[in-house]
Amino acid sequence: MMNGLDRIRLFSLRDKVMSAQQAIELIKDGSVVGLSGFGGAGEAKTVPLALADHAVAHPLRITLATGASLGNSIDGRLSQAKAIQRRYPYQADPTLRKAINNGEVMYIDQHLSEMADNIRHHNLPAINVAVIAATAITEDGQIIPTGSCGNSANFVEMADQVIIEIDNTINPVLEGVHDIYLPKARPNRGPIPLTQAGDRIGTIGINVNPEKIAAIVINDLPDTQFGMDEPDTDTLSIAQHLIHFFENEVAQSRLPENLGPLQSGVGSIANAVFAGFEHSNFKNLEMYSEVLQDCTFQLIDSGKMTFASGCSMTLSEPCAQKVMQNFDQYKDKIVLRPQEISNNPEIIRRLGIIAINTALEFDIYGNVNSTHVTGTKMMNGIGGSGDFTRHAHIAIFVTKSIAKNGAISSVVPMVSHTDHTEHDVDVLVTEQGLADLRGLAPRERARKVIECCAHPDYREALLSYFERACTHGGQTPHLLHEALSWHAQFEETGSMKTA
Amino acid sequence: MMNGLDRIRLFSLRDKVMSAQQAIELIKDGSVVGLSGFGGAGEAKTVPLALADHAVAHPLRITLATGASLGNSIDGRLSQAKAIQRRYPYQADPTLRKAINNGEVMYIDQHLSEMADNIRHHNLPAINVAVIAATAITEDGQIIPTGSCGNSANFVEMADQVIIEIDNTINPVLEGVHDIYLPKARPNRGPIPLTQAGDRIGTIGINVNPEKIAAIVINDLPDTQFGMDEPDTDTLSIAQHLIHFFENEVAQSRLPENLGPLQSGVGSIANAVFAGFEHSNFKNLEMYSEVLQDCTFQLIDSGKMTFASGCSMTLSEPCAQKVMQNFDQYKDKIVLRPQEISNNPEIIRRLGIIAINTALEFDIYGNVNSTHVTGTKMMNGIGGSGDFTRHAHIAIFVTKSIAKNGAISSVVPMVSHTDHTEHDVDVLVTEQGLADLRGLAPRERARKVIECCAHPDYREALLSYFERACTHGGQTPHLLHEALSWHAQFEETGSMKTA
Repeated sequence: MMNGLDRIRLFSLRDKVMSAQQAIELIKDGSVVGLSGFGGAGEAKTVPLALADHAVAHPLRITLATGASLGNSIDGRLSQAKAIQRRYPYQADPTLRKAINNGEVMYIDQHLSEMADNIRHHNLPAINVAVIAATAITEDGQIIPTGSCGNSANFVEMADQVIIEIDNTINPVLEGVHDIYLPKARPNRGPIPLTQAGDRIGTIGINVNPEKIAAIVINDLPDTQFGMDEPDTDTLSIAQHLIHFFENEVAQSRLPENLGPLQSGVGSIANAVFAGFEHSNFKNLEMYSEVLQDCTFQLIDSGKMTFASGCSMTLSEPCAQKVMQNFDQYKDKIVLRPQEISNNPEIIRRLGIIAINTALEFDIYGNVNSTHVTGTKMMNGIGGSGDFTRHAHIAIFVTKSIAKNGAISSVVPMVSHTDHTEHDVDVLVTEQGLADLRGLAPRERARKVIECCAHPDYREALLSYFERACTHGGQTPHLLHEALSWHAQFEETGSMKTA
Repeated sequence: MMNGLDRIRLFSLRDKVMSAQQAIELIKDGSVVGLSGFGGAGEAKTVPLALADHAVAHPLRITLATGASLGNSIDGRLSQAKAIQRRYPYQADPTLRKAINNGEVMYIDQHLSEMADNIRHHNLPAINVAVIAATAITEDGQIIPTGSCGNSANFVEMADQVIIEIDNTINPVLEGVHDIYLPKARPNRGPIPLTQAGDRIGTIGINVNPEKIAAIVINDLPDTQFGMDEPDTDTLSIAQHLIHFFENEVAQSRLPENLGPLQSGVGSIANAVFAGFEHSNFKNLEMYSEVLQDCTFQLIDSGKMTFASGCSMTLSEPCAQKVMQNFDQYKDKIVLRPQEISNNPEIIRRLGIIAINTALEFDIYGNVNSTHVTGTKMMNGIGGSGDFTRHAHIAIFVTKSIAKNGAISSVVPMVSHTDHTEHDVDVLVTEQGLADLRGLAPRERARKVIECCAHPDYREALLSYFERACTHGGQTPHLLHEALSWHAQFEETGSMKTA
C-alpha cells in the first residue's frame, strides 16, 4: 500500500488520492484559497509548494487565507512566484514581507479570531478551495488536523472544494488532542459553552461533506523546526520583573494563587518569560493561548502547569521528539482549538486571562505598536495580540528598552503606528522595570513609563518631551511637530539619539 | 406622608430616609464614590449636588466613578468645587473637560463595558459609597433604577455603603423595563444567556443587602432634558449614503432583510441617520445599543422597529412626555440593561451588531480618533464606541468631511490620536460619500477614503500626501515629517488649508 494510504480509514475516499500536480488544477487564477497552518505548524505543504513551482511557468494570482503564519517558506515561494495577490490574516515570511512593503501584495492584517466570521458573514469573499493538512481521516470521515487547528475547520465548512493533504510525517498519536467547535452562523448563534481552559466542547476531527473532497494528496515534507534563542540578561530581567509583579498581586489578593489562565505571544522574549515561571513558586498554572511553545511543555514536565489550551504547537526538534514519543503523558493536559475559539473575546473575558505579548515599541502614554517599523513597514502582523489584549483581565506588553545597540528606543514620545490603544494596555515591562498603569490617567502613565521602562540613555529626552508638552495642556499632552521626530531622525541618521 | 415615601415599599427601610446633607457625611475625603447615571439619564442628583455645595466650604477630593456622562451639571459643579480628584469611565461636561485638559483632574477614559470587571477584579480600587437613583424600592427590597442602568447594580454589589435617592420626578411606570443581570466573579463565570436583542435574563430591580443601605434621600430634581439638532443637508446625505449601502448589502444577500441588531452612538448625526430609516423600506428593525434617543421611539411608533435594547433613555422633553404617558405601549418593546451587558463583547459578537458611531476625525487608512482634539485635548471620551466597534459585524463611523467652515478636514493623513485602529473599522461615511473598506489593504483603503469621503477642498492634498508617501514604500505609507503637519498648522494658523 502507498505510504500514508492507511491513514485514510474511510476506504471510499482512497479513490480520491492523486498527485499534487493533479490537485492544483483545482486552483485557478483568482481563486480564494484557504490553507491550514498556524504559527508555522500544521500547514499543508505539498500542494502549495507544487502551486508555487507551477506558477513560475504558468502565472496565476490567488487570494491566500490561512490560520496564521506558515512554515516551509510556503509564503516566500508563492510570493517569489508572484502567485499571491491578496493575503490574510497574518504572515511572518521575509520574502512575502518585502513584497507587501513594496505594495506588490495586498495584505489585510487582521485579528486572528475575526477572519472566520468575516468570511462566514460576507465581509470577505467566499473560499473556493480549502487545502487542509491531516493526520488521518477517520472511519466516519472526520479530518484529524495536524499540529494546529487554525481556521481549518472553518475553511472546510465554507469552501466549495476541499483538498486534504495526508501528512505522513505527523505522529498519529496526535489524534484526539484537537477539540473542534465552530460557532453557528448568526442569527442562530448561542453562547460558546466553554467555562474552563480545559473544557472539551467539540469533536476530535473536522466534519466534512465527503462530496466536497475533491482531492487527497500524500505529503512527506515535515513541518519546519523552529529554533529559539536562549534567554539573555535582558529577557531574564523582564521575566524577573513580571514574576515579582505576579507575586505581589497574589500577596495583595488581587490575583488567585495560580494567576488564572495565561496567554503568551510567540518568540524568544515570551519564551524566556515563561521559563521564568520554572524557577518561581507558582503552581497549578494554566494556559489559554494560541501557540504552545517549548516552555509550555517544560512547565508541564516540571509539574508547574496543569493544563494548556492552544491553537497550535510550535516546538523545537528536541522538544517535539520528546513530546511525541511520550504523548500519552500529555494527552489529558493539552487541547488544540480552532482560532475562532482559542482567540475568542467571549472566552478571553469570561476566563479572565493574563495576556503577555511582545511590543515593537510603545509610547509614554501606553499605546503600543506591534507591527509597523517606523510606522510604515510591516513586520509580521497584529496576529492574536489584539484578541487577547483587548479582552484580557490584565494586558501586558514586554520588550527590550532599546534595539540596534541603542540606536532605537522602544519607548517613544508617540508610537508611529497604533495597534493597541492605551485603553487596553495595563502593564509595560522592559529589562529596566515594570510600569503598572492600571487606574492611571495619561499624565501619570507617562511619568511611570519613563521612570520604569525607558533606557537611561533616553529617559531625560522623554521626560523633557513630556514636560514641554504639558505646558501646552491636554489630557494627553503632545508636541505635534516633535511627536514623530525620533522616528524621522532614525530614518535619516540611523539613530534616535541626539548628537 | 412625605412625598416619595410611598415609593419605599419595604417599610423597614423608611427609617433610613434622611436629608442629603446628612447623607453626604458618609462621603469622606479620598472616598471612591460610584454614582448612577448614563448618557445624562438616571443619575442621582440631590446627593452629589449637596456634596458639591458642601465641598466649596469644606474641601474634599473624591474618585468619581459613574455609568457614563451625567446630566444636571453634576460633573461641572463637583469639578468647580474641586471635589473630583479622579474620574472614570466617561464624561461630557464643559467645566470638567477644562479641568481634565488642565491636568487638574485625573481622567481615566475607559471602555464602558470594562469598568465593572476592573473594579470587581481589583484593577481599580473598591467602591466605598454607591449613590443610586431609584424609581422605587419594592416590597422585597429591590432597587428599581430610573432612566438608565449604567453600573448601578455593580456599584450596589461592590460598595461598602449604599445611598439610595428615591427620584420623585420619575414616572413609576418605568418599573419593569430594566433587566438586571450581572456576570459572576471569575473563576465561576458562565456564558451570558442572551441570544436575542429582546431576551430578558435578569430581574426587574437591583438586589441589595439591606444592611448596606446607609441612607435614603428623596430627590425632586428632574433629569436634564437634552435638545437635539434637526437634521441638516449634510447629516441627511450621510443617512442616505448609509441607507443605500444597507439596501445594497441586503440585495447582495450579505445582510438579512432587517439588517440585524443596530447600535448607534449619541448625538445629532446619529439621530439623523436613524431618522433616515423612517423613510426607508426597512422593516422589523431591532436595536441593541446603549443610549436610546428620540429616534428609537419614532421608529417604534412608525412600526419600523420591533424592539430596542439599551442602557439608558435620553429623550427630549416632548418625546419623554409622550413616551411616559403611553409607556404601556412600549413596555414589551424596550429593555434597559447594565452597561456590562448592553456593551458586552460576548453579546455584540454573538448577535452580529451593526455599529454606527461618530468620529472626530479619521485618516486615509481608516484609523479613527473619537476623543482628542488635535491629539491632545479630551473632548468627551471613548464611551461605548470601542466596545461596539471592535466586536461589531460591520463597524461604521460617520462624520462631516469638514468642520469650522472648512478650516478643519475630518479626513487627515494620520490621526492625531488613535481610538479605533484600521483593523476594526469597516465603513466610513461623510456627506461626500461612503467608503466600504472591508477586505481592503491599507493602500487600497487610502484611495477609497480620499475619493469617497474627503471634502473636495482637501482631496488633492490628501492624494498628494499618499502618493508621495508610497514612493517610500511600506504596508502603510507615511511621511513622518508631514503626517501630523495638518494638525500642527491648524494649531498655529487656525486652518489646515495651505495658502
